[in-house]
Amino acid sequence: MAKHNYAAGPCVLPQDVFKKAAEAVLDLDGIGLSVLEISHRSKEFIAVMEKAQSLVKEILSVPEGYSVLFLQGGASLQFLMVPFNLLNTNGKAAYIETGAWAKKAYKEAAALGNAEVLASSADKNYNYIPKGFEVPKGLDYLHITTNNTIYGTQFKEYPTTDGLLIADMSSDIFSQKIDISKFDLIYAGAQKNLGPAGTTLVIVKDEILAKTDRKIPSMLDYQIHAKADSMFNTPPVFSIYVAMLNLEHMKAQGGIEAIQKHNEEKAAMLYNEIDKNPLFVGTAELEDRSNMNVCFLLTDESKKEAFDKAWAAAEISGIKGHRSVGGYRASIYNALTKESVQALVDTMAKLA
Amino acid sequence: MAKHNYAAGPCVLPQDVFKKAAEAVLDLDGIGLSVLEISHRSKEFIAVMEKAQSLVKEILSVPEGYSVLFLQGGASLQFLMVPFNLLNTNGKAAYIETGAWAKKAYKEAAALGNAEVLASSADKNYNYIPKGFEVPKGLDYLHITTNNTIYGTQFKEYPTTDGLLIADMSSDIFSQKIDISKFDLIYAGAQKNLGPAGTTLVIVKDEILAKTDRKIPSMLDYQIHAKADSMFNTPPVFSIYVAMLNLEHMKAQGGIEAIQKHNEEKAAMLYNEIDKNPLFVGTAELEDRSNMNVCFLLTDESKKEAFDKAWAAAEISGIKGHRSVGGYRASIYNALTKESVQALVDTMAKLA
Repeated sequence: MAKHNYAAGPCVLPQDVFKKAAEAVLDLDGIGLSVLEISHRSKEFIAVMEKAQSLVKEILSVPEGYSVLFLQGGASLQFLMVPFNLLNTNGKAAYIETGAWAKKAYKEAAALGNAEVLASSADKNYNYIPKGFEVPKGLDYLHITTNNTIYGTQFKEYPTTDGLLIADMSSDIFSQKIDISKFDLIYAGAQKNLGPAGTTLVIVKDEILAKTDRKIPSMLDYQIHAKADSMFNTPPVFSIYVAMLNLEHMKAQGGIEAIQKHNEEKAAMLYNEIDKNPLFVGTAELEDRSNMNVCFLLTDESKKEAFDKAWAAAEISGIKGHRSVGGYRASIYNALTKESVQALVDTMAKLA
Repeated sequence: MAKHNYAAGPCVLPQDVFKKAAEAVLDLDGIGLSVLEISHRSKEFIAVMEKAQSLVKEILSVPEGYSVLFLQGGASLQFLMVPFNLLNTNGKAAYIETGAWAKKAYKEAAALGNAEVLASSADKNYNYIPKGFEVPKGLDYLHITTNNTIYGTQFKEYPTTDGLLIADMSSDIFSQKIDISKFDLIYAGAQKNLGPAGTTLVIVKDEILAKTDRKIPSMLDYQIHAKADSMFNTPPVFSIYVAMLNLEHMKAQGGIEAIQKHNEEKAAMLYNEIDKNPLFVGTAELEDRSNMNVCFLLTDESKKEAFDKAWAAAEISGIKGHRSVGGYRASIYNALTKESVQALVDTMAKLA
């Protein structure tokens, strides 16, 4: 029996995707070869890559003039690629520090050039999204982390800038409708709502590239990857294949509107229980609560052993909170079912 | 029926590995979770990572004092990481240019610092391994590409240097016994003899790290990855899992001696046919012939259509030569069976 998998990423994907992926590991579409042994230059894989790219464009309504790339190195390599490609040697970048990952992104930029933290919620252990800050004019770019996995916060409105707007959407891309045209570059490690670990999605406005005065190493150059259609070097074939299967699944589910509705309903189920159950308290500010990662604490620590036993008995896994927040974190990504959320809600209700 | 897969990489892996990988995509060792949805911090994946690292050490007899890393970005990212970590701002690196990949490695180093091509076989389209060149004293490092996939050449003896010796072994690692202690850093994209595309093996002597005067971005810093046990960022879980399965398979096969014997026998079968069959001629110098990639041409181009039909009918795939060499390239990596080699030899013999 499959567990209720609340892992923060890598995380649950649809059972249907696992089934198709397992079949392709044995024999891809009946061609007599495993998906693990085909050349990335084969017509089969070129079709996979094209389909994955076109499904991303379709599902997210990506406007003309943007390239969709599948790279490697996760968000962590993007922390470096973004300033290498977009921060001029005499330019300036600003970062909104909403958690440990946003801070890491800032640090890589600051090591390379002139970057500043424009606003931070470090004063309250990142339990809110900073607001009301003024964005200076003349920035090369402003960088935000739209969802903060560790702390369970999420931008509900995005800041604006006369520079480029760059977003790390690793943990909420494909969870809701977004207006891509507001962003100049979006990146996301695949291992939440897109696919297994091993590939990184980049959606970049073509016209912003090749404009800095910096010498960019080949593997860090978005333009090189874009020109080579994400095949400048051998791509992570299987991760992209599974992402493609999952994108097909998203489309079949009814697209982004249906996914968003499902996610909002799941989040409401869990936050409702947290708010009405006297044994639990959420850690994030109400207005900034994430629909992807629900962080909460026990109000009575003496109940810890009983609760931990109860959720384990209910076949729930992966809800231990990150060490920097403590308590619990229920990651309720796209593929987590309402049945799984109900299993946790029931376990919490029974404890009270 | 499985095809005879001669692809140059990604390439054939053992059928047994495909079978176990497919099972794990559905349910990893009966834990109720797919290998694609487990956290990289789970005890299950930590065990996979540890086992993969220890099997690399065991199979290759890696001496004490070396770290085994599983990274991302393929050899192409190593082309950048090597000079970032090992080339001082006032130092010098030398490269042996034995093909397109060696040239790319050199280019990334030369864009960052002082690097020179010490010897090249570009004059004969890389159909031999340069020899007899003098290695200057005082190099930060000397870089070689031990096997040249496109041209079918392979170093049989390695040059020596009073600097560090660095090798791209992407296409011949795990194919033969090597004395790791001769090298300071070895890297290899996984997608030949190790596993599916998506991870990069690095074997690095710990004492060479943290010695340059260069500021190294986090994701390009070997020491950061080594300290974090290859989990500085989310690793490519599935690629490493399949590599671990394949390493187990190598060990069960009898280890590196048995693998080397098998590979030498396969190469002899194919080169013997090329040398005795008047319709074919090898492209690489005899003494530099690769045991992994066998490149050959038809001596009579009018036979092309007949030969192409014949191998396709024999369920052979992936033997088209690289465009820069033309003709045919039979990549006979570890997992390609003697039966597959025999199928090609028979097809060639019948044509004569």
